[in-house]
Amino acid sequence: MRVVVLRLGHRQERDKRITTHVGLVARAFGAEEMLLTGIDRHIEESLIDVANRWGGDFRLRSGVNWKDEMVLWKKTGGNVVHLTMYGSNLMDVLGPIRNSEKIMIVVGAEKVPPEVFDVADWNVAIGNQPHSEVAALAVFLDRLFQGKELAQEFLGSLRILPSARGKHVMEHH
Amino acid sequence: MRVVVLRLGHRQERDKRITTHVGLVARAFGAEEMLLTGIDRHIEESLIDVANRWGGDFRLRSGVNWKDEMVLWKKTGGNVVHLTMYGSNLMDVLGPIRNSEKIMIVVGAEKVPPEVFDVADWNVAIGNQPHSEVAALAVFLDRLFQGKELAQEFLGSLRILPSARGKHVMEHH
Repeated sequence: MRVVVLRLGHRQERDKRITTHVGLVARAFGAEEMLLTGIDRHIEESLIDVANRWGGDFRLRSGVNWKDEMVLWKKTGGNVVHLTMYGSNLMDVLGPIRNSEKIMIVVGAEKVPPEVFDVADWNVAIGNQPHSEVAALAVFLDRLFQGKELAQEFLGSLRILPSARGKHVMEHH
Repeated sequence: MRVVVLRLGHRQERDKRITTHVGLVARAFGAEEMLLTGIDRHIEESLIDVANRWGGDFRLRSGVNWKDEMVLWKKTGGNVVHLTMYGSNLMDVLGPIRNSEKIMIVVGAEKVPPEVFDVADWNVAIGNQPHSEVAALAVFLDRLFQGKELAQEFLGSLRILPSARGKHVMEHH
C-alpha cells in the first residue's frame, strides 16, 4: 500500500514546529511523501536533513494546490482519508480503508475548508476529543500498518541500537 | 491503572505549541495529569479551557522539579517510563509495563539529562527513528490501553457525534 500525507493550511511561524513533527511522523510511520500547501524552507531543510542522515526515500513537495492534488489522487485510483475529530470512529472504517492500494491522508491546521470533508472518501476521527494532528497521524498509521511500520529498516548512515539504558548510535559512511 | 505525564525541558515560545499538543494528547488518551517543569500561562489556559468545555478530570501542575517528582512517584509505588528514540523496543517491554498500577510517562524536549535514563524503570522507543514526542506519547498510550482510551466518555458541555460528513457537535449546559 502506498501512503502520502497532505498537510493543509500551514501558517509559517505559528505552525513551523507542528508541521515539522507531522513530516517526521509521516516518514517514521511509513508514508512515502508529504505534500505541503505552503512553502517553508526551514521545514524543508529539517526534513531533508533527517532523511539524509537517517535514511529512507521520504520526499517533501511544497507549494501544492490541495484541491488539485486530492482530485488527481482520486482520478488515478487513490483514496483520500481526512483525519478530523468530527469524523467516523476509526474502528468503524479501518476495514474498508485497508482495502485501498493508494491512500492520501489529509491533516489540517485550525480551519479546514468544508470541501475537504466532501472530497474525502473517509473523514476519520482518532477519538472525538480535541488533541493533535501529529498524534492523529501517528495513531492512524500505527493502526493502519498494525505496528509493522515501527520495524521498517531505513538504512541511513545513523542507526540506533535499542537499549534499556543510555544512547547507542552506530554511524557509518 | 493511573497514568500521569511529565513534560521535561519546555522552552517558552519555541515549545509552546508542542507542549500544548503533549497536554491535549495526555488528556485525550487517558492520562489524569500533566506535570510541567516550566511555567507557561498560555499553555495552562489552553488546557484548562479544553477541560472545561470538553469535560473530564484532567489536571495540569506547572513549575515542578522533575527529579523530586520522579523520585517521589517511585517511592510511592509508581513506575517511570521514559519515552526516547534510544530506548528498548516498545513490544519488548509493554508486557511488564502493563503490570504496573501507577505509571509516570516522561517526555523530553531536545536535551534530556542523562539521569532521567537512570531513574526511569524503562526507557522505551516508539520506533528508533527521530519523530515527535507528541506522536510517541499518543502511540504509547494507544498501545498501553489497547485502543480503549478512545472510547472514554468525558461528559463535557461539548460532545461530537461521529459522522461520515460534516461537523456534528452537541452542546448542553
